[in-house]
Amino acid sequence: MRTEPRAGLAHVPPPPVSRQISVRAHELAPRIGELEANLHMIEEAIRDAAKAGVQMLVLPELATSGYYLRVDEAKRCALPADDPVFGKWASLLDPGMVLVLGFCERDGDTLFNSAAVITQAGVIAVYRKTHLWDEEQSIFEPGSAPAPIVQTPLGNLGVLICYDLEFPEMPRGLALRGAEIIAVSTNWPTVSRPEGEHPPEVIQAMAAARSSRVAIVCCDRAGTERGNLWTQGSSVINGDGWLSGKRDGDRLDATITIAPGRTQIGPRNDSINDRRPAIYVPSGNVSQG
Amino acid sequence: MRTEPRAGLAHVPPPPVSRQISVRAHELAPRIGELEANLHMIEEAIRDAAKAGVQMLVLPELATSGYYLRVDEAKRCALPADDPVFGKWASLLDPGMVLVLGFCERDGDTLFNSAAVITQAGVIAVYRKTHLWDEEQSIFEPGSAPAPIVQTPLGNLGVLICYDLEFPEMPRGLALRGAEIIAVSTNWPTVSRPEGEHPPEVIQAMAAARSSRVAIVCCDRAGTERGNLWTQGSSVINGDGWLSGKRDGDRLDATITIAPGRTQIGPRNDSINDRRPAIYVPSGNVSQG
Repeated sequence: MRTEPRAGLAHVPPPPVSRQISVRAHELAPRIGELEANLHMIEEAIRDAAKAGVQMLVLPELATSGYYLRVDEAKRCALPADDPVFGKWASLLDPGMVLVLGFCERDGDTLFNSAAVITQAGVIAVYRKTHLWDEEQSIFEPGSAPAPIVQTPLGNLGVLICYDLEFPEMPRGLALRGAEIIAVSTNWPTVSRPEGEHPPEVIQAMAAARSSRVAIVCCDRAGTERGNLWTQGSSVINGDGWLSGKRDGDRLDATITIAPGRTQIGPRNDSINDRRPAIYVPSGNVSQG
Repeated sequence: MRTEPRAGLAHVPPPPVSRQISVRAHELAPRIGELEANLHMIEEAIRDAAKAGVQMLVLPELATSGYYLRVDEAKRCALPADDPVFGKWASLLDPGMVLVLGFCERDGDTLFNSAAVITQAGVIAVYRKTHLWDEEQSIFEPGSAPAPIVQTPLGNLGVLICYDLEFPEMPRGLALRGAEIIAVSTNWPTVSRPEGEHPPEVIQAMAAARSSRVAIVCCDRAGTERGNLWTQGSSVINGDGWLSGKRDGDRLDATITIAPGRTQIGPRNDSINDRRPAIYVPSGNVSQG
């Protein structure tokens, strides 16, 4: 079914060719609980990206509903993963174009904080957020399946949502399973940081990208919502761990390069193959700080 | 034996009290292959730190030998882990003080790129670098035991060496096993980075610290060696992921705070307990970028 990731746990071999991919993170400002207005805003963002020749468009977490939802608002905005609107959006994409967006998903009576991966062929994967932040736990069920690796026309795409990224296991696991690009739909509330520093979540993304030589595209939110200021920390990070791209208002456009052999980081070193999993320790929840 | 880590893989419960710890990273510039001069420099650094009231002193990787070694130089500088010099250094430490330093270790005919943890009681742990960088592979054997967690007077200490830190599994694994502080003896050759950015290894350390709410103290090298410029990227990072401390020449002094409950990052969230290892995927080496 569409509500389960299509890709399994097996390693997905990436295409053995170098590619340059035009990506965009578009920081929308959905209106809380106003489904129709939000769907319209998403449609406009898709049309705008297609017109600009963007190959991968990433939109924020819960773009269809807003974030600081009451339960009744979440229910009112929730969409099943086979809702016709996804087909409509698919029809607006150029051939080879990939769209990742967060949406409030309904499956029977259960709600999920989900992300859909959409091409001209329709919804090719749905991922349900694994790690729920704070009040999300009152509204959504956490996902029960690993984050997907999706074979797209652009390469192997992994998908995460917001807080997922703060668990180093998540981007690393996707990279080990063959992800070349990780799209992160997110809503980062502003947290304090020292002068001159990137937002902490961006630092975590930069580190994750460099450790596994995987490109990461994070799309954050714009504006404020119920008094909460968003970070507007959208970031496109190449596999070398450095930020790239150019901002135009709420849109961040960049070109990422996916090169075969990019994990070969020195004449005798490879950031993946140098791993020594046999002597890494078990990963259960054991520490109580 | 002293050449094996004393601490096993079991979880080590940390002391349930808040602590402030005075730490120092002292970027030495050992002379390549000149053992006696280097031992003397280390002794001076220890005396200097003890005089200043430093509670944890971290010194660079291969502080006894220098880094860009030829095999004959490595052999000439190599010390067994029960060499009397470690006892001499132990005698210079204040009660409760902890010293971590990298050294060129000899065990029979085999050389290791190792770090020793030393208190007044002597060498309490030796760790052999797990991931060897480039030409190190021509000189050293990699370690075969997980990085240790050492119960010290200051709290639970994990130890890593240089390239180890670039594997997210390493700091995460130490934190899961109860590390409150991770000491990293390192030698970071300068790599290019965009204007205004921290060295990439520092970004990786900041991310690792924040993800697991563990303090990380990295001690890099000073100066140049055989034409290679060191980054001088020593960093003290609190469990919130931010840099702290004050530089005085080659010495970086800082105070770190270890607070029980620091992994509780929100009313309903915990950076360790929110993990969902049952749905993280297996960690074998599967990706070929």
